[in-house]
Amino acid sequence: MWFKPLKPVNLRFIAPLNMKITKDLYHSSLTLLTDYYQFTMAYAYWKAGKAEEEAIFNLFFRKNPFQSGFTIAAGLDYVIDYCRNMKFGENDLAFLAEMKEANGEKVFESGFIDYLKNMTFSCDIDAVEEGEVVFPNMPMVRVKGPLIQCQLLETPLLNIINFQTLIATKAARIVLAANGDPVMEFGLRRAQGIDGALAASRASYIGGCASTSNVMAAKLFGIPVSGTHAHSWIMSFDDELSAFESYAETFPDNTTLLVDTYDIVQGVKHAIEVAEKLKERGKELKGIRIDSGDLAYFSNLARKMLNEAGFPNVKIVASNDLDEHIITSLKMQEASIDVWGVGTKLVTAYDQPALGAVYKLSALKSKDGDWVPKIKLSQQSIKINIPGYHNVLRYTSKGKAIADMIYLEGMEKSDTVTIIDPIDPTRRKKISVDNAEVEVLLKPIFSKGEKIYDRPSIQQIRQRTQDRLAIFDKTHKRLINPHIYPVGLEANLYEYRTALVLKAKAMDNGN
Amino acid sequence: MWFKPLKPVNLRFIAPLNMKITKDLYHSSLTLLTDYYQFTMAYAYWKAGKAEEEAIFNLFFRKNPFQSGFTIAAGLDYVIDYCRNMKFGENDLAFLAEMKEANGEKVFESGFIDYLKNMTFSCDIDAVEEGEVVFPNMPMVRVKGPLIQCQLLETPLLNIINFQTLIATKAARIVLAANGDPVMEFGLRRAQGIDGALAASRASYIGGCASTSNVMAAKLFGIPVSGTHAHSWIMSFDDELSAFESYAETFPDNTTLLVDTYDIVQGVKHAIEVAEKLKERGKELKGIRIDSGDLAYFSNLARKMLNEAGFPNVKIVASNDLDEHIITSLKMQEASIDVWGVGTKLVTAYDQPALGAVYKLSALKSKDGDWVPKIKLSQQSIKINIPGYHNVLRYTSKGKAIADMIYLEGMEKSDTVTIIDPIDPTRRKKISVDNAEVEVLLKPIFSKGEKIYDRPSIQQIRQRTQDRLAIFDKTHKRLINPHIYPVGLEANLYEYRTALVLKAKAMDNGN
Repeated sequence: MWFKPLKPVNLRFIAPLNMKITKDLYHSSLTLLTDYYQFTMAYAYWKAGKAEEEAIFNLFFRKNPFQSGFTIAAGLDYVIDYCRNMKFGENDLAFLAEMKEANGEKVFESGFIDYLKNMTFSCDIDAVEEGEVVFPNMPMVRVKGPLIQCQLLETPLLNIINFQTLIATKAARIVLAANGDPVMEFGLRRAQGIDGALAASRASYIGGCASTSNVMAAKLFGIPVSGTHAHSWIMSFDDELSAFESYAETFPDNTTLLVDTYDIVQGVKHAIEVAEKLKERGKELKGIRIDSGDLAYFSNLARKMLNEAGFPNVKIVASNDLDEHIITSLKMQEASIDVWGVGTKLVTAYDQPALGAVYKLSALKSKDGDWVPKIKLSQQSIKINIPGYHNVLRYTSKGKAIADMIYLEGMEKSDTVTIIDPIDPTRRKKISVDNAEVEVLLKPIFSKGEKIYDRPSIQQIRQRTQDRLAIFDKTHKRLINPHIYPVGLEANLYEYRTALVLKAKAMDNGN
Repeated sequence: MWFKPLKPVNLRFIAPLNMKITKDLYHSSLTLLTDYYQFTMAYAYWKAGKAEEEAIFNLFFRKNPFQSGFTIAAGLDYVIDYCRNMKFGENDLAFLAEMKEANGEKVFESGFIDYLKNMTFSCDIDAVEEGEVVFPNMPMVRVKGPLIQCQLLETPLLNIINFQTLIATKAARIVLAANGDPVMEFGLRRAQGIDGALAASRASYIGGCASTSNVMAAKLFGIPVSGTHAHSWIMSFDDELSAFESYAETFPDNTTLLVDTYDIVQGVKHAIEVAEKLKERGKELKGIRIDSGDLAYFSNLARKMLNEAGFPNVKIVASNDLDEHIITSLKMQEASIDVWGVGTKLVTAYDQPALGAVYKLSALKSKDGDWVPKIKLSQQSIKINIPGYHNVLRYTSKGKAIADMIYLEGMEKSDTVTIIDPIDPTRRKKISVDNAEVEVLLKPIFSKGEKIYDRPSIQQIRQRTQDRLAIFDKTHKRLINPHIYPVGLEANLYEYRTALVLKAKAMDNGN
């Protein structure tokens, strides 16, 4: 690969910074980073003696983003940090203690503030690993523990997982469209806030980008960094050629010249002059970058000019509001583009800037120690949750994924299983277990509040994305109108859910 | 106003946290939160002896977002924090010092690292205040200072201003649509990252929202907080009525009940039962919330049921993917909604999740001490910048804004001025200065690196938004196809720019 982004080399400076979310962030713990209604509910649970009832909540989404056929999980590393630091600071408690209703009365009794002060994270968390390929309705994170803790975790977990999963998925789609060409992420200036940028750089790398422009993200996460120069560099000189020559003088081994400050054709001519001077010194111009105009037309024209001047190895980098669809179109037009720079459309997930993952109570332990399944109804079937204490299996055959099954924990083994689409029960698939290999997708992350999971490096996560995408048929990875990968409820879970829905509807009508 | 969001009362806990962006954020300074090419350019400026040439950069956008007729400035408070903390930490310098090219050579000489170590922020910054109404092409932030510092600031300033301005504008539009009803922001779970949420809560409040659900934002920024309960509260009980009763027991003075967990009509009936029990105790049910289904149909049905039961004062809160257009539609349908809850569509600016503000070099001081104007050409006229050392005047007459004018600093006074649209020069407007009052919109924020601006409180900023919007004719504030407010170049600046463009084009063609 021509494109060699700079790698941060000194890992000793990265290691102590890897605790990305700390109690010092914003001079505050992040334990208040949740919706106020989590506290009013927490208080009401506490008052009702329900705070420590054991609950199971599942985090899942209902539709792949971008009309994609798949989604890439990301954000778990932040979740781990969040949970390990889930502890109210004095500031936090004082803030809550001083909250007043309109009538001047304090909202929370001091006993509740003491309860929060002594609260220690003690949940079990099972989750799909980052870089995993995931689908609608399956749990991505399952939290089991005291009702009050599960409830407080709802909002931060959704904030973290929704965004990073969205961006990792967008990046994976763009990287698929680039079809082997390097994709550089440089969205910092248009990202949604500081962490919107940092977390997006991380998730973009997980999704397959080759580098980021964000130096802080490079330092914090150990991501390769890349970049050349801006129009302002050119404008700070009296003319373009002087600006090019000065830049090449500073970086004789790594110069990519932005050719569109004044006129692209003139810019390419000037770049060729610089390439000739570098050649006399035994050096090579690395590339040129085009950031405006018709990228198909001008990249082909620039390629022709560079080739005719004897510089077939000078690469062409293109940028300007690129996404997977524009890259696909430019590829079909046989544009001469070797490296793709993407920013806004990637880091904001421009065409769908939010993943709608939700976090729903699915079971509550009774006083007898049994799990009581919980269901929420809705006028829209898609919004009815999956009740019970469940998990996900992925079936593969000869190294290819064939179906994912959501099942109740403790399910008995059988030779064949049938999965049923929760929305359209006429969509069913029989799986012959004999011929299939199977993997449980939810991995243990925390047990009773203790982390029991070894965090992989970001490079390992990025590799997992590629390895896992490889086991899916290419029809599921098509950017438009993908073939739907089968994911369903195990037949017993389907029946169990149906019975619960009917029972809840009957209760509702007062029967 | 019925709706009284809780106010954080204990300001002593807010004050020390107001330094929102600090060197402890992420255990790191934020000085590396910039594009890598800013460092390669900085290095090349330093090598070329240009690092301390005095430059002027302007931050501006080219189009109002959301096809709006106006934009609300936000983010300056973060920019002030950023600049005051613009200092490389040891970690940062060590990271840069260790960066290596593919051939193993260090990218930066140690002399440059020393230069960065000693660098102290020393720029002049002038900016429009937060909450100001702004328009395309006018400078929102003008940075004057050493070329190298101006350059390093490009990316963080864009990141901060682009996002907060985008969200404040979206919020202002939603608040306009709500036409006096309170708008609650609760987007944390779908926001783009942690700071994407916090900064969005801040900007939403600036734009006119009444409260946030984000407890941490409430604490950090002093924003009112609000919230009630979720579906999980209901599901954690055996039946809805018990859940409602238990919640009302805990919050007899402030209960709003979510009625759509199972069936909305049944939910309203249960809410009425609770309202009757509260009434027996001399208390009032505050409201009900509907979060799904047809909001027009069900809000009117619920209103009718509540009124017939003798509860005309119970308010109806609606939520579910609301934005300014859906709120307008519900208002036109005479839906019985008193309070609006908005989340995803607001905090991600769903229909346009990025503002495309740019930051362009407009002048460079020559060795003789003269400002040399700088221009960037483009095939698209809209992308040609405005050169020179310029500022913005707003003309008002009888308390109504009549036009904004971009002009060169030091312009001579005259009785009438003509402003010319930079994109369509046939659009001109003569302003009779005698009848107009005038205000310079760029206010001094930093002088030679020293802050000379008193930061207003967030409540003052929110009030400014309302006061400033009030001076614009309602046709500019229309949500669809607004009347375009006149903003242009002063005639001399227009001629100056045209001459520079023609000169640059001539140079380009080798003439």
